Amino acid sequence: TIFTRLQQALDPAAAISTQDLAGRRVVITAGPTREALDPVRYLSNHSSGKMGYALAAACAARGAQVTLVSGPVALATPPGVARVDVLSACEMLAAVEAALPCELFIGCAAVADYRAASVAEHKLKKGDDTSGMTLELVRNPDIVATVAARSERPFCVGFAAETQALETHAGDKLSRKRLDLIVANDVSQAGLGFGSDDNAATLLWREADAVRRQALPPQPKTALATAILDHLVTRLP
Amino acid sequence: TIFTRLQQALDPAAAISTQDLAGRRVVITAGPTREALDPVRYLSNHSSGKMGYALAAACAARGAQVTLVSGPVALATPPGVARVDVLSACEMLAAVEAALPCELFIGCAAVADYRAASVAEHKLKKGDDTSGMTLELVRNPDIVATVAARSERPFCVGFAAETQALETHAGDKLSRKRLDLIVANDVSQAGLGFGSDDNAATLLWREADAVRRQALPPQPKTALATAILDHLVTRLP
Repeated sequence: TIFTRLQQALDPAAAISTQDLAGRRVVITAGPTREALDPVRYLSNHSSGKMGYALAAACAARGAQVTLVSGPVALATPPGVARVDVLSACEMLAAVEAALPCELFIGCAAVADYRAASVAEHKLKKGDDTSGMTLELVRNPDIVATVAARSERPFCVGFAAETQALETHAGDKLSRKRLDLIVANDVSQAGLGFGSDDNAATLLWREADAVRRQALPPQPKTALATAILDHLVTRLP
Repeated sequence: TIFTRLQQALDPAAAISTQDLAGRRVVITAGPTREALDPVRYLSNHSSGKMGYALAAACAARGAQVTLVSGPVALATPPGVARVDVLSACEMLAAVEAALPCELFIGCAAVADYRAASVAEHKLKKGDDTSGMTLELVRNPDIVATVAARSERPFCVGFAAETQALETHAGDKLSRKRLDLIVANDVSQAGLGFGSDDNAATLLWREADAVRRQALPPQPKTALATAILDHLVTRLP
């Protein structure tokens, strides 16, 4: 409203209390998943969870009812957010499905694409040979694509962390996973992305059969979360 | 000495300042190693580094000159300890060899047995098939066995984290890796071992062609570090 915009212009801090997500149910995934190989070993990735936690905090501050499904991270739960801790991709999908229905789903977690075909009950012993070993992996569920494929689906936002051909790969994911918006970021840039407090991103979405883009410059992940939500609220049904 | 023992009996806090490792050079490894699969994914394990850090702190408090070669952990460097941070097993071995010679080597790190045969420069893309993938792994160097195999070797202490047949596996490692002492612990017991503040252990060593054992009951890792050093100082050359 004009009143809200005037209020924000006069007092920037009041922007925090903009309640443009009031009453909306939001489910967000964050952090890495950890896929056990045996009782002590696992496959994982460098996701710190900071981006997903910043989004959860920003959604809650704007009035949303937020469930944050989180992989193992070293972060405090944002105020007003309901957090569900999980380890593996399969556990994360189950927790997301238990939190549905919702109006907005943001899949920000760096879900491991693969898990071990079989998890050893006891610690794997090295053989006598010094040659090596072969680890058989099976595909994990694609959580954001699974949510987007439901008949009663929320507005679905995915993330694409790439090290090359950013927009090609992200545009492909947007179509293939039937997402409403994808946030693409280049994790090969020093000081941005994984583990960092800062990030840059390109938003990609489909409008009238064309892929549209909006670049968001390098900034703290908290500010980037606000910029992403500013875009989102204009497009939520 | 009698004087030291009387002093300890009269003032237990003075035990901390027992300088029975004064002037000794000690190298300790701690924490997990992290083996990159590509720029974002890795193989690792649940080691918290607490046991190795407790040993480093205890050695330094007893007067030793300590180099702590540490994998990625969320722990503060103990006072008086020189810390070298590494990620992979190969980096850890190089850092250990750079810190030699020493009189006591304690290999407490949970070194990954395997690393990827080739590390992808860019993030691996999933194929179109939904079947799975095969990860080719090669054996990592065995750091404690490498140190123990040197012609001018320190007193070598290894750790064995097992989930079954604890003493058989640990006794086998003692002989095969030519260690002077092995600290065996059962990581399948809830509340002990990986990530926990407490641990129990069995010390195994060879004496007159027989394997001798000493059980150390469940206790805080700081106390366990002291118990291990109390045993060690009686056997250092």
